[in-house]
Amino acid sequence: MKNEFGKRPRARELGIEIGILETGPHNAITDVNGVRVGHATIIQGSGALVPMQGPIRTGVTAILPHGGDLFLDKVTGAVVRINGFGEVTNTQQIDEMGVFEGPLMLTNTMNVPRVADAVIDWAFEHSTAMGITTWGISPIVAETSDSYLNDIRGRHVTKAHVYQAIESARDGAVSEGAVGGGTGMVCYEFKGGIGTSSRVLPDELGHFTVGVLVQSNFGSRRKLRIDGVPVGRELIDYDERIQRESQGSVIVVIATDAPMSSRQLKRMGMRATFGLARTGTQGGNTSGDFAIAFSTARNRPHHSNAHTLELAQVVEDTQLINALFDAVVEATEEAVLNSLFKAETVRGRDDHLIHALPISETVEIMNRYGHAHVHLP
Amino acid sequence: MKNEFGKRPRARELGIEIGILETGPHNAITDVNGVRVGHATIIQGSGALVPMQGPIRTGVTAILPHGGDLFLDKVTGAVVRINGFGEVTNTQQIDEMGVFEGPLMLTNTMNVPRVADAVIDWAFEHSTAMGITTWGISPIVAETSDSYLNDIRGRHVTKAHVYQAIESARDGAVSEGAVGGGTGMVCYEFKGGIGTSSRVLPDELGHFTVGVLVQSNFGSRRKLRIDGVPVGRELIDYDERIQRESQGSVIVVIATDAPMSSRQLKRMGMRATFGLARTGTQGGNTSGDFAIAFSTARNRPHHSNAHTLELAQVVEDTQLINALFDAVVEATEEAVLNSLFKAETVRGRDDHLIHALPISETVEIMNRYGHAHVHLP
Amino acid sequence: MKNEFGKRPRARELGIEIGILETGPHNAITDVNGVRVGHATIIQGSGALVPMQGPIRTGVTAILPHGGDLFLDKVTGAVVRINGFGEVTNTQQIDEMGVFEGPLMLTNTMNVPRVADAVIDWAFEHSTAMGITTWGISPIVAETSDSYLNDIRGRHVTKAHVYQAIESARDGAVSEGAVGGGTGMVCYEFKGGIGTSSRVLPDELGHFTVGVLVQSNFGSRRKLRIDGVPVGRELIDYDERIQRESQGSVIVVIATDAPMSSRQLKRMGMRATFGLARTGTQGGNTSGDFAIAFSTARNRPHHSNAHTLELAQVVEDTQLINALFDAVVEATEEAVLNSLFKAETVRGRDDHLIHALPISETVEIMNRYGHAHVHLP
Amino acid sequence: MKNEFGKRPRARELGIEIGILETGPHNAITDVNGVRVGHATIIQGSGALVPMQGPIRTGVTAILPHGGDLFLDKVTGAVVRINGFGEVTNTQQIDEMGVFEGPLMLTNTMNVPRVADAVIDWAFEHSTAMGITTWGISPIVAETSDSYLNDIRGRHVTKAHVYQAIESARDGAVSEGAVGGGTGMVCYEFKGGIGTSSRVLPDELGHFTVGVLVQSNFGSRRKLRIDGVPVGRELIDYDERIQRESQGSVIVVIATDAPMSSRQLKRMGMRATFGLARTGTQGGNTSGDFAIAFSTARNRPHHSNAHTLELAQVVEDTQLINALFDAVVEATEEAVLNSLFKAETVRGRDDHLIHALPISETVEIMNRYGHAHVHLP
Repeated sequence: MKNEFGKRPRARELGIEIGILETGPHNAITDVNGVRVGHATIIQGSGALVPMQGPIRTGVTAILPHGGDLFLDKVTGAVVRINGFGEVTNTQQIDEMGVFEGPLMLTNTMNVPRVADAVIDWAFEHSTAMGITTWGISPIVAETSDSYLNDIRGRHVTKAHVYQAIESARDGAVSEGAVGGGTGMVCYEFKGGIGTSSRVLPDELGHFTVGVLVQSNFGSRRKLRIDGVPVGRELIDYDERIQRESQGSVIVVIATDAPMSSRQLKRMGMRATFGLARTGTQGGNTSGDFAIAFSTARNRPHHSNAHTLELAQVVEDTQLINALFDAVVEATEEAVLNSLFKAETVRGRDDHLIHALPISETVEIMNRYGHAHVHLP
Repeated sequence: MKNEFGKRPRARELGIEIGILETGPHNAITDVNGVRVGHATIIQGSGALVPMQGPIRTGVTAILPHGGDLFLDKVTGAVVRINGFGEVTNTQQIDEMGVFEGPLMLTNTMNVPRVADAVIDWAFEHSTAMGITTWGISPIVAETSDSYLNDIRGRHVTKAHVYQAIESARDGAVSEGAVGGGTGMVCYEFKGGIGTSSRVLPDELGHFTVGVLVQSNFGSRRKLRIDGVPVGRELIDYDERIQRESQGSVIVVIATDAPMSSRQLKRMGMRATFGLARTGTQGGNTSGDFAIAFSTARNRPHHSNAHTLELAQVVEDTQLINALFDAVVEATEEAVLNSLFKAETVRGRDDHLIHALPISETVEIMNRYGHAHVHLP
Repeated sequence: MKNEFGKRPRARELGIEIGILETGPHNAITDVNGVRVGHATIIQGSGALVPMQGPIRTGVTAILPHGGDLFLDKVTGAVVRINGFGEVTNTQQIDEMGVFEGPLMLTNTMNVPRVADAVIDWAFEHSTAMGITTWGISPIVAETSDSYLNDIRGRHVTKAHVYQAIESARDGAVSEGAVGGGTGMVCYEFKGGIGTSSRVLPDELGHFTVGVLVQSNFGSRRKLRIDGVPVGRELIDYDERIQRESQGSVIVVIATDAPMSSRQLKRMGMRATFGLARTGTQGGNTSGDFAIAFSTARNRPHHSNAHTLELAQVVEDTQLINALFDAVVEATEEAVLNSLFKAETVRGRDDHLIHALPISETVEIMNRYGHAHVHLP
Repeated sequence: MKNEFGKRPRARELGIEIGILETGPHNAITDVNGVRVGHATIIQGSGALVPMQGPIRTGVTAILPHGGDLFLDKVTGAVVRINGFGEVTNTQQIDEMGVFEGPLMLTNTMNVPRVADAVIDWAFEHSTAMGITTWGISPIVAETSDSYLNDIRGRHVTKAHVYQAIESARDGAVSEGAVGGGTGMVCYEFKGGIGTSSRVLPDELGHFTVGVLVQSNFGSRRKLRIDGVPVGRELIDYDERIQRESQGSVIVVIATDAPMSSRQLKRMGMRATFGLARTGTQGGNTSGDFAIAFSTARNRPHHSNAHTLELAQVVEDTQLINALFDAVVEATEEAVLNSLFKAETVRGRDDHLIHALPISETVEIMNRYGHAHVHLP
């Protein structure tokens, strides 16, 4: 079941159902109305690393909060630092002003500036006013490091790749695993990368949707848990482990159509920690772990001559707010699992080999630990 | 002009006009519609300190954000730490939830728990539900230290004083200087305490009001500036100085009827720093300097069965937001000055003597520094 | 196996071993050299609630970081907010100055001011300088709400109880469950309260100790996990559930003899979130969840005439820092479990009944979920 | 006295002495032993803006904390947000880990990514390990917007300019005004840019040095104060004003050889606010105002096999810490003034003209406001 690109199952196809809330139709961040995701995946060369040349196992992923002008129509947002050994650009501005502008980009660590610069290019093409009669875009780029598999010094994600990711962004099903920004990522010493999941609240709680997308690149194998089962411990001798206690990172992007203020979105972002924790990690020392949360339901215009505006927000005095928190926790845990289940084995620079999480063995372990409903697809 | 209680002039009566915005009718925090202020002032005994007995030079001040039920109808609020060597109770909850409940109380450092406990008593008397069918009030008590003039170990502010401050709270003019929580406070080595000021924005900026009330207890005399004039340096030999580089503190309470979110109120609170800085301080090491800001225009109910609510907020893309920031800066500076101009000389424990800021000398210095319009009242 | 006070087993006595690090000799926070714990437990009356009278099911717990003068010899410390619907006093000062002074006290929500006031009394008795020639103590009091079982309006924890908790504080084994501040607490709808655990790093990682003590009062039963096993879901119909989605809270106190700066202790405190998450919670909306971390290895004197001092800190570039993070996660999870396993059934105000976690059923569920080594004591 | 490049006086040459502490030998950030500053200034073209081509009035400034390997030997540092409408890259990592790596770069807003990318290039040239056997550099780039004078869309600061700024960095006197990152900046509607100042503490306070360098680009003219004198109000009709209430920003870099922890450096950074406030600003809505502070006296190695290290820090219980705070306030105020006094008139894109602060008129106003000692150079 290894190495069949596009054929590996998602967690739910194995009967692994995290939590109690229902998923959206695609069980993806795109279940939040308006949200689009696009990838550019770059795979070139093999064998010994020649810095600045390859092999290349990297990419970039774009998350577009809505289909309109992402600069003139800003979304309410927040960034939460779980462990700060990493970069998300422009976090201070998001915290001060409570809004995002532009697409969210996920890529590798060393490529952050080039991706940010390309987002500026892209924004300039859509605005003749920026930098002349109004201020320019503040790009939001987050990263994790793919240096184990990729020639990260090469910064191979170009302007063309950034445009490709943004312009190919679509709603509907989302490619997962070793794609886009996740191409060269490693999670619990298995192949990780992009994963996504969603939850839809019941009608009596407003039928709001929460979607999560992760770029997973963290974790020590022995700690991996799947729905509480110590799968990593059982798979400890599955192959030769790479010793990377804490050089990973994870970015958790949270979208919701519930109207939430930036303060409330920080509260949502904090819950990503709970979801990550359930997969086993302790948040390693050199991990850059951030949650980036946004609401599509209370956009703010770039310019307005009005003195005040009315914005909706969720009442924090009902089951609703707790259900939204649950949705983040559940979807974060499941998105990490999907990044593992969907990613195929990748051989990268210096023939570094990262195996896909073995499906049959995992199912067998889950069964052994009382999860009898877990099954091969 | 010293020691005439109630007769000392406010800054404006001397022609000192800070900034360019207009003041409200009382040039006080109570110019924000609904806001009330009450004091309990406790002055007993003289001579040598007998710990736990006296002399007593202390008190408590209550600021009520509105005239309704302060628990069931919470105001949007925020606390900003300028220098954290001090206590404001329940700041984490304010930051998490974005609201205040109950009256804001200002008192001396060691009396914080007893005042908080009395606020709980008072709240229980107004609610049979607290602690039984809903949670109890989280009292907001801020403090500065009056240990130079007062038997602070004695914690002489009792439940009766707290009730007196809350229940005597009124709109209209506010008593300033050595009253309420400010009774024993020292500012720039002169007598300080309570001071207040307000600003009203012009009609084209929505006619919003910003009111500030300070409990001033900070500053080294040589640094005192009045409207930019180095008054402290000129008065350095006015009397025997007390050497207290940094044992002071200041609490700045900011009220506005502009609808502002907790994020926006944090931005407002940060501007108190600018107003304080203009009076000369650098924010001493052991100073507990906090700004507490609230908006009376977007209250949130304790309970609601709705999923969402609509709240107004100021558009941060117009002159309005900058004018609101200006209002905080101007009113903070002027409130500190009013605390100095209004406070009379006080002799306290161990015959410690803190002189009132001398009016005639100050006017003369201001004139000498080109402020010809400053005059005796 | 219910209701036998002092006889219920700790998690390890059932074969439940969380994580991979070894515990200290008492598997308690007191394994950190110098740390002491004391309780005052108050149980009076039964039947219908008569507010301000009873029934009383409450108490207070004191954690003393060392055996010396806790004011003159301050410990490096930090507070981390996980969810801020609650109070820990003086957090801003801890954050600004990086130190704690005095004992840490855990009690019920409404009793915070009275406990803080009693700590001031106690400190005054040990210092004639406070408030006269130097500043007074800033008490650290944290809380969770016992209003379901206790007459919380009564604020029955008196000065005598506070003194009792402080003065009875001892090293060695720690009483757990329905004792001290934990007397009336509820965790995952079972009886919770005080729980503790510790980890000792191997010699090659410096043999440092990390101890955790929790006051647990949070969680919805259906979410309870024990070492990953969904025990709560299996016990959902064990008895009539109380419906309290989010009215709980938890305080996690972390002690270590590793020399850590306040910045590093914040990083440690953040890891408590991971430990809590593994027990199932999502951090409810009205939960006051805080981690309070301190290092006993780099105290700072109240006064010093030196310009600089040398302080050790852990190098964040070795396995050591990750092992310290692991220790926090493991010990937090196990401390919560110990609070559940050790707490007996309690009947409180209005005959509210909270069952102890059933031991036999739990062991049976653990076995069923592949944890064959779990056994009755 | 206008427009004579290099000939305009610094504040002190006019007799304007801010505060009471002494300056270092060059009254510059380079008075902190080891600190170096380099500029690349780019001035090309004139007349109408042709986006992406010119006219160009921009540049980049490099501050090197020491002369060694800036990646392997990291300096303790902290970033403080005063108003967050702007970007400093990698602030979350600085906050999490308490250290800086690499040079600090100041440039224009839209050029941040390209400058960051060039810093990566430069770092790679000095390290074959980065991205291969260890992680790569996290560049620190801060910005303010020069869009009024410069073709900011063009992002004209290239890799060559970044290398030039870094490699030309020297100790000794620092070029100020319209140079480096400050080339196109506007301050209080006069020409601003780079300014610097320093303070040396007296021997009895350890003879520590504090140096400040600002890139000034903020302020509404009517608010400008020089040593308390309302110079801006008096010069309000000096020329046609540009209406830019809040589109500015300021970066304040603070260096010291006092050993200070990242927590203490945050406290230092907060004091920049006080210095800025004295020049008149209120911190405009769209201002990106940050203080970046570092200590050269407690570097941390990139790798270490030790478990712990000893680091010195200033005792916060003496006059020393307050004098360090004073030094920041005084040097920040004077650095802003130097940026104004040293910057010559600049005509930029679309013939936008920004006048230098007029010297004679300013001296005359200062004299009129009682500062008789201020004089023409």
